[in-house]
Amino acid sequence: MNAALQQLEQDIAAASLDALLVTDPKHVYYLTGFASNPHERFLGLLLIRGEEPVLIVPALDAEAAHAASSVKTILTHSDTDNPYALLKSRFGSVSPGSIGIEKEHFSVSRYELLAEAVAAGSYQDIGHLLRAMRAVKTPEEVRIMKHAAELVEEVLRQGLAHVKAGVSEIELVAELEYLMKKVGASGPSFDTMVLSGPNTALPHGVPGERLIQPGDLLMFDLGVYAGGYASDITRTFAVGEMDSRLRDIYSAVLAANEAGIAASVAGASFGSVDKAARDVIEAAGYGEYFMHRVGHGLGMDTHEYPSLHGLNTDIIQNGNVFTVEPGIYVPGLGGVRIEDDVLVTAEGPQTLTRFPKEWTVLNL
Amino acid sequence: MNAALQQLEQDIAAASLDALLVTDPKHVYYLTGFASNPHERFLGLLLIRGEEPVLIVPALDAEAAHAASSVKTILTHSDTDNPYALLKSRFGSVSPGSIGIEKEHFSVSRYELLAEAVAAGSYQDIGHLLRAMRAVKTPEEVRIMKHAAELVEEVLRQGLAHVKAGVSEIELVAELEYLMKKVGASGPSFDTMVLSGPNTALPHGVPGERLIQPGDLLMFDLGVYAGGYASDITRTFAVGEMDSRLRDIYSAVLAANEAGIAASVAGASFGSVDKAARDVIEAAGYGEYFMHRVGHGLGMDTHEYPSLHGLNTDIIQNGNVFTVEPGIYVPGLGGVRIEDDVLVTAEGPQTLTRFPKEWTVLNL
Repeated sequence: MNAALQQLEQDIAAASLDALLVTDPKHVYYLTGFASNPHERFLGLLLIRGEEPVLIVPALDAEAAHAASSVKTILTHSDTDNPYALLKSRFGSVSPGSIGIEKEHFSVSRYELLAEAVAAGSYQDIGHLLRAMRAVKTPEEVRIMKHAAELVEEVLRQGLAHVKAGVSEIELVAELEYLMKKVGASGPSFDTMVLSGPNTALPHGVPGERLIQPGDLLMFDLGVYAGGYASDITRTFAVGEMDSRLRDIYSAVLAANEAGIAASVAGASFGSVDKAARDVIEAAGYGEYFMHRVGHGLGMDTHEYPSLHGLNTDIIQNGNVFTVEPGIYVPGLGGVRIEDDVLVTAEGPQTLTRFPKEWTVLNL
Repeated sequence: MNAALQQLEQDIAAASLDALLVTDPKHVYYLTGFASNPHERFLGLLLIRGEEPVLIVPALDAEAAHAASSVKTILTHSDTDNPYALLKSRFGSVSPGSIGIEKEHFSVSRYELLAEAVAAGSYQDIGHLLRAMRAVKTPEEVRIMKHAAELVEEVLRQGLAHVKAGVSEIELVAELEYLMKKVGASGPSFDTMVLSGPNTALPHGVPGERLIQPGDLLMFDLGVYAGGYASDITRTFAVGEMDSRLRDIYSAVLAANEAGIAASVAGASFGSVDKAARDVIEAAGYGEYFMHRVGHGLGMDTHEYPSLHGLNTDIIQNGNVFTVEPGIYVPGLGGVRIEDDVLVTAEGPQTLTRFPKEWTVLNL
């Protein structure tokens, strides 16, 4: 049984739950190693206190589940079976007192079917238990995430060769997403962003037909999924001769990125990472132009717990992975963002992303 | 107000609902023209019987909603507001009897917040009302879907130029998805499938490193999203000299595809389309090798209502759009599938996809 599942069994007892039903396919994968997309069919991991965990899968996934799952008791249901009756049968004749479910994932339709079949005293949300576990990555997860970071860096490296006179933002996006497949990633972990010139001043700009020109800043924000985990990196380059103010802005953002990374240590608050980066940008006189949080948790989702905003007093733990991505966006002039994926370890912060960050001039 | 919203107002009365809350962003778009991704924030279209519809959006989307929405009463909430209190305020002091919600989309978390704020007598599912409306496409939807079909055909046309000695399935997938962006589609409407040789015998095969070779069948199953609607096409080609049995199989599948399309007329059952195609394949002696339904509804989702399986007795209406995609898959030998997107009209079936279907030999 994997460590996360063992932890969850302890959590059930601590939370005074009689049972727990995990149905988010991502969490079934996290807890059993069995990845699948059941579409509208029922998939669930049932943990009844004091009993062996049971994985319930559509019949057509039985073979794949047996091959991949660390939970070895696997029940199947065909399209004409009622999976909720199967759940009920596991509880026997005694109605459970309290069952934990993922209330943000569970639909009302399914809830009504479950509540009708299994007359539990109450249904409690277990989203926070899974969220807390996922925020601390295992060595195996770190290994996969390092690989996802290496792949996106290879994509960026190869993609830069396509920055030429006459190329547009959207063509570079298409090229980068093509390279993601070529290097072996599953695909982008979010909509790939390539912005140029004044468009770089829009933190959530959308790539368009604008052609890359000398004098532009050129911002790449991209990530890939690989092995079920996301990477996420931003680098900003100079194209040809540049307004000297942009170089100053770049220096401030780079210093803020490094300050945020240095502050990513166990025992500090997530909010203190935001503050460390923001202090640098404010001292440089650009505070009003850094109008977003410094980062977000990264893992099976591109954006997951924790949110690294200034008011987050939750405490950093070893094994956390999150982005540190300060930026300065001056309307009409341009914007710079530099983003790394940071792993917190007992030896201090490590970046999973290693792509060079010094001021780099590309020539068309 | 758009026609779908007017229809829904009539449905509320017919279903004896006092109000209706639509929260699936896709359905908010369908009913108001406002497309957005609210992430974890609340987005909802509230229809109270006898009152003007109200659109409730996150404050940061207010400008976009005012620009795009046909519903002109727009309420906003910031991240510190409680959107459920806003909902409650619309009902005044009288608790509504019955509120319709999309139970397959609504999470238990949200349901609990809603039920706590608005003490309705009951909550009814309205999924079937939206499903029924979406199945009949408007002329504007047909126009968008024709464009999505044209784009995917342009991708296939350009993609075929990359079928060369030494190219692998996965490289062709990457090339096709690159072309999707280049031609102006939003992206693939499902995982692009390129299968070759014996892999074509797997109806749900996954593209891999296999190199395309003379003597292969080469199957492309791909679609794009454009303007919020999906296209979906399959064509199968011969690469060089071919086993003569495969050419026979191709002829049977093409005849089945054409029979299925011809059977796509208003008043017939969806199941009869499956039967028309299946009869042709059974008569050719390959019945056991056609082991999936003949097609599925197509629209804002790549797979939506109706499902075109043999037991579906629901009746075809003008304006329905669905795929007709019979196939024959002989293990160890190879498989052929030919798929078109079909629009049912008063003048008979029309295919949105027009890519040539005659037996075509590609030479490496």
